[in-house]
Amino acid sequence: MEVVNIKKKFSLFNEHWSPKIIGQLNGQDVKLAKLKGEFVWHNHKDEDELFYIVKGTLIIEFRDRKITLNEGEMLIVPKGVEHKPIAKEEVWVLLFEPSHIKHTGNVQHELTKEHFEKI
Amino acid sequence: MEVVNIKKKFSLFNEHWSPKIIGQLNGQDVKLAKLKGEFVWHNHKDEDELFYIVKGTLIIEFRDRKITLNEGEMLIVPKGVEHKPIAKEEVWVLLFEPSHIKHTGNVQHELTKEHFEKI
Repeated sequence: MEVVNIKKKFSLFNEHWSPKIIGQLNGQDVKLAKLKGEFVWHNHKDEDELFYIVKGTLIIEFRDRKITLNEGEMLIVPKGVEHKPIAKEEVWVLLFEPSHIKHTGNVQHELTKEHFEKI
Repeated sequence: MEVVNIKKKFSLFNEHWSPKIIGQLNGQDVKLAKLKGEFVWHNHKDEDELFYIVKGTLIIEFRDRKITLNEGEMLIVPKGVEHKPIAKEEVWVLLFEPSHIKHTGNVQHELTKEHFEKI
């Protein structure tokens, strides 16, 4: 068992759109990511995905609306729902999702990570 | 989809040791709880359990050690590991765990909740 300090873990990396695994339980990953700029439209056919904002403001575009998430707020994006995260300024986000999830879901893109580093 | 503000959700209840569901995904619950005093020794045979401290300091006793968790820190207690949370002052905690989990695991106790309210 390891006590994980979220802010200390965020200090260990600077890349954007490259989630790092900080914990695993019940087949799910807890990940941290720093986001800046626009991500790619995608969906996860079989996985719901939780975004919790640790710092900054994240916009998530959906096909029918746009949702703004501020620090201390979370949103669960249900499986199959297309979404596109946008961070005008850097955002720190905690993700909770199944361990087998693909980074860009149904889309292969230059931002796609095939492997998530554990930190 | 609902934007969930964690601190606003905490303002909706005051009971101790009575986790509230604020989100569900992939068969897992995200819960909030306010803790004060000593809980009961228990374990969850089949479920890992994540504690994330939103406010305060939580001590978790294990049979072989004691772990202190401060604000912004998290700990995953693996399935089967006996533990006893202790909050000398009130602690606000976020929990991730499977939806079918029993509150006090293998133990039936006056603190046991049979049902978790959604807020």
